[in-house]
Amino acid sequence: MERSSSRRDARSGNNNDDLQNSESDGKGSKDVGEMETIERIFETKEVPPWQSQLTLRAFVVSFILGILFTFIVMKLNLTTGIIPSLNVSAGLLGFFFVKTWTKFLNKSGMLKQPFTRQENTVIQTCVVATSGIAFSGGFGSYLFGMSEVIAKQSNEDNASENIKNPSLGWMIGFLFVVSFLGLCSVVPLRKIMIIDFKLIYPSGTATAHLINSFHTPQGAKLAKRQVRTLGKFFTFSFLWGLFQWFFTAGEGCGFSSFPSLGLEAYEHKFYFDFSATYVGVGMICPYLINVSLLVGAIISWGLMWPLIELRKGDWYPADLGPGSLHGIQGYRVFIGIAMILGDGLYNFFKVLGHTFFGLYRQVKEKKSENELPVSRNSTPELTSMSFDDQRRTQLFLKDQIPMWIAIVGYLVIAAISIMTLPHIFHQLKRYHIAVIYLLAPTLAFCNAYGCGLTDWSLASTYGKLAIFIIGAWAGGENGGVLAGLAACGVMMNIVSTASDLMQDFKTGYMTLASPRSMFVSQMIGTGMGCIISPCVFWLFYNAFSNFGVPGSTYPAPYALIYRNMAILGVEGFAAFPKHCLALCYAFFGLAIAINGIRDLVGKQKAKFIPIPMAMAIPFYIGGYFAIDMCVGSLILFVWSKVNKPKAAAFGPAVASGLICGDGIWTLPSSILALVGVRPPICMKFLSRSVNMKVDEFLGS
Amino acid sequence: MERSSSRRDARSGNNNDDLQNSESDGKGSKDVGEMETIERIFETKEVPPWQSQLTLRAFVVSFILGILFTFIVMKLNLTTGIIPSLNVSAGLLGFFFVKTWTKFLNKSGMLKQPFTRQENTVIQTCVVATSGIAFSGGFGSYLFGMSEVIAKQSNEDNASENIKNPSLGWMIGFLFVVSFLGLCSVVPLRKIMIIDFKLIYPSGTATAHLINSFHTPQGAKLAKRQVRTLGKFFTFSFLWGLFQWFFTAGEGCGFSSFPSLGLEAYEHKFYFDFSATYVGVGMICPYLINVSLLVGAIISWGLMWPLIELRKGDWYPADLGPGSLHGIQGYRVFIGIAMILGDGLYNFFKVLGHTFFGLYRQVKEKKSENELPVSRNSTPELTSMSFDDQRRTQLFLKDQIPMWIAIVGYLVIAAISIMTLPHIFHQLKRYHIAVIYLLAPTLAFCNAYGCGLTDWSLASTYGKLAIFIIGAWAGGENGGVLAGLAACGVMMNIVSTASDLMQDFKTGYMTLASPRSMFVSQMIGTGMGCIISPCVFWLFYNAFSNFGVPGSTYPAPYALIYRNMAILGVEGFAAFPKHCLALCYAFFGLAIAINGIRDLVGKQKAKFIPIPMAMAIPFYIGGYFAIDMCVGSLILFVWSKVNKPKAAAFGPAVASGLICGDGIWTLPSSILALVGVRPPICMKFLSRSVNMKVDEFLGS
Repeated sequence: MERSSSRRDARSGNNNDDLQNSESDGKGSKDVGEMETIERIFETKEVPPWQSQLTLRAFVVSFILGILFTFIVMKLNLTTGIIPSLNVSAGLLGFFFVKTWTKFLNKSGMLKQPFTRQENTVIQTCVVATSGIAFSGGFGSYLFGMSEVIAKQSNEDNASENIKNPSLGWMIGFLFVVSFLGLCSVVPLRKIMIIDFKLIYPSGTATAHLINSFHTPQGAKLAKRQVRTLGKFFTFSFLWGLFQWFFTAGEGCGFSSFPSLGLEAYEHKFYFDFSATYVGVGMICPYLINVSLLVGAIISWGLMWPLIELRKGDWYPADLGPGSLHGIQGYRVFIGIAMILGDGLYNFFKVLGHTFFGLYRQVKEKKSENELPVSRNSTPELTSMSFDDQRRTQLFLKDQIPMWIAIVGYLVIAAISIMTLPHIFHQLKRYHIAVIYLLAPTLAFCNAYGCGLTDWSLASTYGKLAIFIIGAWAGGENGGVLAGLAACGVMMNIVSTASDLMQDFKTGYMTLASPRSMFVSQMIGTGMGCIISPCVFWLFYNAFSNFGVPGSTYPAPYALIYRNMAILGVEGFAAFPKHCLALCYAFFGLAIAINGIRDLVGKQKAKFIPIPMAMAIPFYIGGYFAIDMCVGSLILFVWSKVNKPKAAAFGPAVASGLICGDGIWTLPSSILALVGVRPPICMKFLSRSVNMKVDEFLGS
Repeated sequence: MERSSSRRDARSGNNNDDLQNSESDGKGSKDVGEMETIERIFETKEVPPWQSQLTLRAFVVSFILGILFTFIVMKLNLTTGIIPSLNVSAGLLGFFFVKTWTKFLNKSGMLKQPFTRQENTVIQTCVVATSGIAFSGGFGSYLFGMSEVIAKQSNEDNASENIKNPSLGWMIGFLFVVSFLGLCSVVPLRKIMIIDFKLIYPSGTATAHLINSFHTPQGAKLAKRQVRTLGKFFTFSFLWGLFQWFFTAGEGCGFSSFPSLGLEAYEHKFYFDFSATYVGVGMICPYLINVSLLVGAIISWGLMWPLIELRKGDWYPADLGPGSLHGIQGYRVFIGIAMILGDGLYNFFKVLGHTFFGLYRQVKEKKSENELPVSRNSTPELTSMSFDDQRRTQLFLKDQIPMWIAIVGYLVIAAISIMTLPHIFHQLKRYHIAVIYLLAPTLAFCNAYGCGLTDWSLASTYGKLAIFIIGAWAGGENGGVLAGLAACGVMMNIVSTASDLMQDFKTGYMTLASPRSMFVSQMIGTGMGCIISPCVFWLFYNAFSNFGVPGSTYPAPYALIYRNMAILGVEGFAAFPKHCLALCYAFFGLAIAINGIRDLVGKQKAKFIPIPMAMAIPFYIGGYFAIDMCVGSLILFVWSKVNKPKAAAFGPAVASGLICGDGIWTLPSSILALVGVRPPICMKFLSRSVNMKVDEFLGS
């Protein structure tokens, strides 16, 4: 589950080079000049005090949308691990719900408080905080990687010492003790990052533009039409999911097993699987991501794996099960990991470099007492503050959150965490946790700063770091695999929350939402997420048979990848089949090389060079979702050719509708599965010869 | 194969009441006032002499389009027997081909003769004549009803005496000796029907409007856009056909067996079968036809057959094969026939009444030497002829076809026919044929006149008449079944040609095409049809296994119905299962009653009363194509709600594209079948329990 290469990256490309493109694509045409005048438009509108920004209706809507988005993120987690940015959808749907509600109240004369953009921001923040837990909770990665189902697939270190099966109780407890730490660590950094450093936070800025535009009169009209489009495609996508359900009576049945490019291609995981979600995801992701996925799929499943399979019996034993890591599956998993690590490491050092370089300039300029410029992304600023900045800064600094609350909060939660976590994972020692909590604020700062510059959260990379360090420290005999995975969870939650919430603060800054109301909203959102996410996961876990098994509806591919990383950390390279290590080195190097070339050739040409992180994703899971996403890309491309402004304005709405409709269908479908209602029909695909046999069998 | 209720009727509804609606739907807004000025627009354009209207390029295009439309008509013949009007498509595609060609020549400076609307009419006439043979040749009805495949299904009178299997030689010979008679019988009537009686011929008039509009400057622009739309949907439909093909490796495989409404509904033939053809047909047919089909399907397959099946073992023996006419199949076939006969008979007498009443008024008015008015359809005319009429009449009368040619032609062809036909069907005696040829010109006149009034050709009803008369005359022992079917062919060809060609003459009249060039074009078209149609049928017949078997891809449902009518004529009601005769009487009466009510309540309310002929069609073949057609209707309906002018202008183009693309795909698909290339995959639909068994079987 590579959020770094997906959720943020999905909108922004691999680095900030692509950012301008994708943002202007999604958002229309808010250039800097226009931005400067935004607060003039809103000058007449009063900003409500922070307590009034926190309304009951906002949290009711947030709760509903939180559940919706948790379902979507969970489904994406468990199928391929590619998660697009849902900020825009959250802002749009939040606006729609509350606007409808206030309109209704207004008509009946009962409206006490009008709907403001501050309230809209509060909702968006709360929803993002809630659904963020579905990602950082690791239900598709480290948390589920602890389970027996996944352990059986890796065939290594699956002693009971290294296994912990999911259970509602400990999952909720675990999330509560680790998720609020990030919040506390962010508070002191807030002013530095946004007022002093003036970091861009592209996703947060984009969301702020969206919310601001909704609350201008003509923006509201466009928003209404966008919502209608979203609703149409939501309905279509939901009904399509319903229709598909009827034909999935067994394994390999239904549209998701449709060998639309032929049976041969299907065997190599090349097919269009009619998933509305991934077509929608493809429409949101930049073309480069989709093409990279397809290139990766072709290189791996089209070329490498068939070639390696020819060596069956030579490179690896021929009598292994299809899931054994000592066989072909080993190549798939480890080469994929190598490429992901290569890309992650490259960007880790790149962002770290930017961070230190930026800090260095920051401090230098602070010293010379001249204001401003920060990152290479920020526009040249005037020495006197613009009206927008003045007003925003003024309001942002009005409602302070006392520093001592953050520090005391961090210490108290850390203490509780150190006390309780070893009760959940006895393999994880108190000193492990203490070390993590000592390092965490620094890493959280790094991640928040890097994310502000490049829009790219490295949370999963920091998580992997924790896996290797703590895993090796604990050692294989003492449940090092489990300790590593648990440490990954602790680390990821802090680091991921730090960057996510700083994005939200940027949105709040630009929409004049009070930092205090934002903080409360984030607290509530995180709290809801800690309960909603495990419950949704629990629903999936119990509703679907073969959950987590490769080739099933919910294979949770990253769970195995994370577990294998933990095994690697504990054991080294003993588990590898022949030549696999050499190939891993090659692809690790390739990932770094490609990234290097991308940075060297410049922004324009980098558009035509695939992103290694995206290429690595299909290595393990196959090319079908890449084909879905390319279909989405193609639709958007043709649409843009036919009517560019319309495609720009309604493309994200269509995509969100497709994603949300299909995502929410999983709710009734998992309930149906839970109560034992099975689909009635199997749509099966057989080769002609097999079909003749089956016809004979059925005839007799 | 009910062309009377389909080809003509598809556009015009069951009677002329619906005509105005459908015509203004299809054609836009040519009202009478506008019509009067048409010839002023074209005044500057010279009308070429009749020889110049017959160009080589016209016949090359006609040949190509003739093959295309023969494929389409043949496919429709052999699947359900509902054939929409293809005149519009023929006009449009003819325009497109020649215009492209002349444009190309014009650019290269080699254009000798510009493309005129007269040439366009010549092409349209030739194509209609060619594809008309595919219908009147009876490949889905009487001709194929003679074959062993069909004889086996009816289980009665299938001695070798009553069987004649298709063979290319005798089919071409048969068509040549019977198809040209109609042409000769029409010629003397030409002036009477069009100049003297001023009959409307709605289809012919509509086609003329289309061709006239194409040749005005702005018409050409619209036509170009229409052609582009048609081309787009043609491509889509063709590719969809191709895609579907890959998944049809066996019986009950592929999209055409998709239980989209569930397996239970599928068993009762309620499903959407993804046929682009019938969605297109549904878009062309008036809503009333589609709804009638659906109502018929629900009454029969949803209600009556399941109820009758409950009586299995009581009303009919339980141990019969599913195709036996002594079982449930008997109810389906005979009740359907009863309803068709009831409707046919009602309309026969109604049209006959109109004919005689019209003639009576005609003659009376002729006597009082006052000019004109004719039918209740014609608009009130001025005593002085309009400019359009003057010019049209003048040109229509310029190139006469001498009467003696027609009479000599008729006698010579009749003589040849009487000599040769008994060599093809020895069961048909010379005196049978002579009697038919004595009656035929009168019936041809009746049909041409009735069609001019109501746009409804009763050819198949006259054909059924011949089945009963000649069948009973010859008697069962002497191969009466075969004699009846052959007589039906002789009769239908004359009567159908007479009405079709008179429509074309009307088109020619309104586009200033010379009657002489029309006649030659019809001759050539008929000649081409006599060779193309049997060849296309032969291709289908040899390419597809299970050809003509119920439930297969090409069940040719009307072949069995026609054969059973012949058996009925020869044998009486001996073959009927219990209570079937009573039900037949009831539905025969119901058909007459519904028609009576439709005529009584007036035009407005008749829109909400289903047409019995259309209701009867699904009785035997099931409701799936009715669902396809209703989907087409629904698409057009929604489109009209969203954008009425666009739907009106482009609906027919979309429909034609869907029909033509799917139709032409049958050409490569049958060639693939002939050379032994089989589809690779079977998309199979199994119930959950069966699927579990199959999975077990495949696992072991």
